[in-house]
Amino acid sequence: MIVILRLGHRLPRDERISTHVALAGRAFGADGIVYSGQHDSGLEKSVSRINEQWGGNFWIRYEKKYEEVVNEYKKKGFLIVHLTMYGIQFQNEIDQIKKNKDILLIVGGQAVPSEIFELSDFNISVTNQPHSEVSALGVFLYEYFDGKIDVKFENRKIEINPSKKGKQVVKSKD
Amino acid sequence: MIVILRLGHRLPRDERISTHVALAGRAFGADGIVYSGQHDSGLEKSVSRINEQWGGNFWIRYEKKYEEVVNEYKKKGFLIVHLTMYGIQFQNEIDQIKKNKDILLIVGGQAVPSEIFELSDFNISVTNQPHSEVSALGVFLYEYFDGKIDVKFENRKIEINPSKKGKQVVKSKD
Repeated sequence: MIVILRLGHRLPRDERISTHVALAGRAFGADGIVYSGQHDSGLEKSVSRINEQWGGNFWIRYEKKYEEVVNEYKKKGFLIVHLTMYGIQFQNEIDQIKKNKDILLIVGGQAVPSEIFELSDFNISVTNQPHSEVSALGVFLYEYFDGKIDVKFENRKIEINPSKKGKQVVKSKD
Repeated sequence: MIVILRLGHRLPRDERISTHVALAGRAFGADGIVYSGQHDSGLEKSVSRINEQWGGNFWIRYEKKYEEVVNEYKKKGFLIVHLTMYGIQFQNEIDQIKKNKDILLIVGGQAVPSEIFELSDFNISVTNQPHSEVSALGVFLYEYFDGKIDVKFENRKIEINPSKKGKQVVKSKD
């Protein structure tokens, strides 16, 4: 199970970025997301709406204190992996990380507390350049799942019929 | 040369997402970005500030009409590749696309005009699920460059010393 921990969500500043983090997590095969910082029912509704239409069981949960989330998943035996531009290039560690099926994947916002670096089993970077937690998460999961990103989501109402030109959204027949 | 075309930038809604698109483009090896929609000097300054500190020549340019950008790059012989959730799974087309060194990579916002699907040589998806232009761009470039994402940026003032725990930002010695 892959669970994302999104740190320090702020309103209204992070509304869209955190939504993108959640949806990228869902699309690339994570199971759910816990977010800390400020509670945001709009963010939770965005995720629910996507599930309703596009299927799957990706879940979202709010937890005020990130420490409790990390400790909870540590106790459950999850590997704690922190995506940070300051970390070791992820390609050097990915084989080691892939040995674990249960991962808490931490993505920060600005000013990640130093405690997170200590609590994590791996602090890894997707490039050591400033870019985006959304692209870092996408690339990490893409590599973690060996490029197998054609996830089928159960109980979807609609799906896309991939097309060379134009948009074809069809009712799911499953 | 890889140039990104970001469609339909809206203020203030897209400020951060477009910044993330630009920075992900820079980090993963694109050369520059043209954006259409609303002019945003803040977005341009964000990119300049990153270059000043972290180096490189990634450029940003505003063009009101996206059609002119597409036509300009078509005339220059660029392949026009549109990243869209409605497209053919990119892994089926990437080998064909990789044969081209000059690519205009279009990333939309909401409500991409149907003309874009017609003008593009390839309409490709990074999963057919709703997620984020930022993760789609990151994964596409990561695959396009065969995972070689350790770009060295010239004239950087600072750089990161990758670390297993904590943050080490150092002055560049280059």
